Amino acid sequence: MAEISELGEFGLIDRITEQFPLRNESSVYGVGDDAAILHYGDKDVLVTTDLLLEGIHFDLRYVPLKHLGYKSAIVNFSDVYAMGGVPKQITVSLGVSSRFTVENIETLYEGIRTACEMYGVDLVGGDTSASVTGLVISVTCIGECEKGQAIRRDGAKPTDIICVSGDLGAAFMGLQLLERENRVSASAGKDFQPDFSGKEYILERQLKPEARRDIIEGLRKEGIRPTSMMDVSDGLSSELLHICKKSGVGCRVYEDRIPIDYQTALMAEELNMSLITAAMNGGEDYELLFTVPLTEHDRIENVKGIKMIGYVTAPELGCAMITRDGQEFPLKAQGWNAFTEKSQ
Amino acid sequence: MAEISELGEFGLIDRITEQFPLRNESSVYGVGDDAAILHYGDKDVLVTTDLLLEGIHFDLRYVPLKHLGYKSAIVNFSDVYAMGGVPKQITVSLGVSSRFTVENIETLYEGIRTACEMYGVDLVGGDTSASVTGLVISVTCIGECEKGQAIRRDGAKPTDIICVSGDLGAAFMGLQLLERENRVSASAGKDFQPDFSGKEYILERQLKPEARRDIIEGLRKEGIRPTSMMDVSDGLSSELLHICKKSGVGCRVYEDRIPIDYQTALMAEELNMSLITAAMNGGEDYELLFTVPLTEHDRIENVKGIKMIGYVTAPELGCAMITRDGQEFPLKAQGWNAFTEKSQ
Repeated sequence: MAEISELGEFGLIDRITEQFPLRNESSVYGVGDDAAILHYGDKDVLVTTDLLLEGIHFDLRYVPLKHLGYKSAIVNFSDVYAMGGVPKQITVSLGVSSRFTVENIETLYEGIRTACEMYGVDLVGGDTSASVTGLVISVTCIGECEKGQAIRRDGAKPTDIICVSGDLGAAFMGLQLLERENRVSASAGKDFQPDFSGKEYILERQLKPEARRDIIEGLRKEGIRPTSMMDVSDGLSSELLHICKKSGVGCRVYEDRIPIDYQTALMAEELNMSLITAAMNGGEDYELLFTVPLTEHDRIENVKGIKMIGYVTAPELGCAMITRDGQEFPLKAQGWNAFTEKSQ
Repeated sequence: MAEISELGEFGLIDRITEQFPLRNESSVYGVGDDAAILHYGDKDVLVTTDLLLEGIHFDLRYVPLKHLGYKSAIVNFSDVYAMGGVPKQITVSLGVSSRFTVENIETLYEGIRTACEMYGVDLVGGDTSASVTGLVISVTCIGECEKGQAIRRDGAKPTDIICVSGDLGAAFMGLQLLERENRVSASAGKDFQPDFSGKEYILERQLKPEARRDIIEGLRKEGIRPTSMMDVSDGLSSELLHICKKSGVGCRVYEDRIPIDYQTALMAEELNMSLITAAMNGGEDYELLFTVPLTEHDRIENVKGIKMIGYVTAPELGCAMITRDGQEFPLKAQGWNAFTEKSQ
């Protein structure tokens, strides 16, 4: 009998989905991207779903319910944007234990509502039931894009420029900080007040991430169509390997081009952790990773908040990072894997 | 602080969803029916979602994983048929604890695949992660129907005939049988062999329900368009009250018209339970409950597997069942409520 942890989430998904061929005309693209692509009428419909479980994906000892609701919605919006689409509807299913009050659930939904209002998304359904275990949140998001215009992971071509939005590693460092303060608080007793001053940015990146609608709009305005795209939820290394595997290409990214905020760097120093590892493998950044043809080099500079971090190569060159001192290190997917670790 | 059990699932949903207005043009109808109705292109897209939690919705001591997978898919297909639509795609998210092997997950997916093949549905996405608690299954189903042709719960009119497909109470009796055998087995030790002979039908209704595609096809063939429809998942009484509340009408149903299989009746006698209570409140029947104009009386008889059980009245007459001896009893929603009981 095989252990699930040996195969990992992606191995398991591969093994199962090869047994599920698509038969319906309206099923354009199934498992294996940020969202499924469905063909309904004159638009393509995008569908993505995420399951968030207490004790695995969040810890209620330091995640406020309102933030949790907000984030649950945002991570799904991010998947739709990562296809080049616009999120339009969500359904939310909850499993709640008896220790939750109606006010708790309303607080969670307040976060969901705020996210929906910010991003113009409608809540159209769901399912709420008791849970004998922890809190369970399942969100499905439906979005749309022009027919045939969804941006998948499999279109990157050699010489394409690799771009990423925002900065990386901050959400991971925010989590380290929250976990440290939680440990200190547990031993210090009830009078303990955590000191988060000067660390607001990394906390917000962990607790209240945003989906990069602005980047999608910026690209559209400039008339740039990425050849491949996905959002960075499991860490940049892991996502780069996904794009390269799906596209049948290799890549080179430069350590000194990876965007990192100074709060992230300070926190890594304070905790004596490798900054580049945090940025490459931290995860939960919800930034957009994408590739564009080399000919778009100048136009990309017109879109705010994007950094060019490397280029796509022929497949035989493999996937590697070039360090500041010019050495090449193969990329490894050390991204967050819910089957092998509870959190990084 | 309000307890969730005081408000119940529907009270909670009402309270939350009134704060979520629909804003997008593509959001036709949101929370409050079997599925949401979305307007994408020349078809209406239906979306429904269900969250199944170990210990609440299923008990792995007597539910085989393959059946569980099958049923998880079917209950969602049933919601799409209950809107008069055709299910086309599903996404499946799983939370699995470390005691599960890859083979266990594959067995679960085998059931899902069988259901998908039977009903012509494609698996297009999902999410799999670890769970520190029990098994969590979240399924979202996407279906379609002709524009404006989705059948909601709010269209029943006085004098309409109330119809139900198949028979009721069998799945509930199947559950009683499984729970009894499980208790006996626990005290009798490992040599115990449950005897299910002559009870195959009620077991199958519990473990391997079907969605009534045949009824939807039969109605379409006869050119009959129900004025309201939903599937019977929480029990006939509860569903009738939903339709009447949403439509602003009352109803009368006749005890002697409620379709019940003889295995259901025998089991109720064996367990000394009220047969009509099981049929009216048992739940998990996944039959279709619908109303048709009185003028369709003769044509309805051409569709196999449908029973006319009563009629719609003016709202001031309320909702009642007429017993065999001519007495009127108000209908009560004693349906399965995951917030107040683990199972009925």
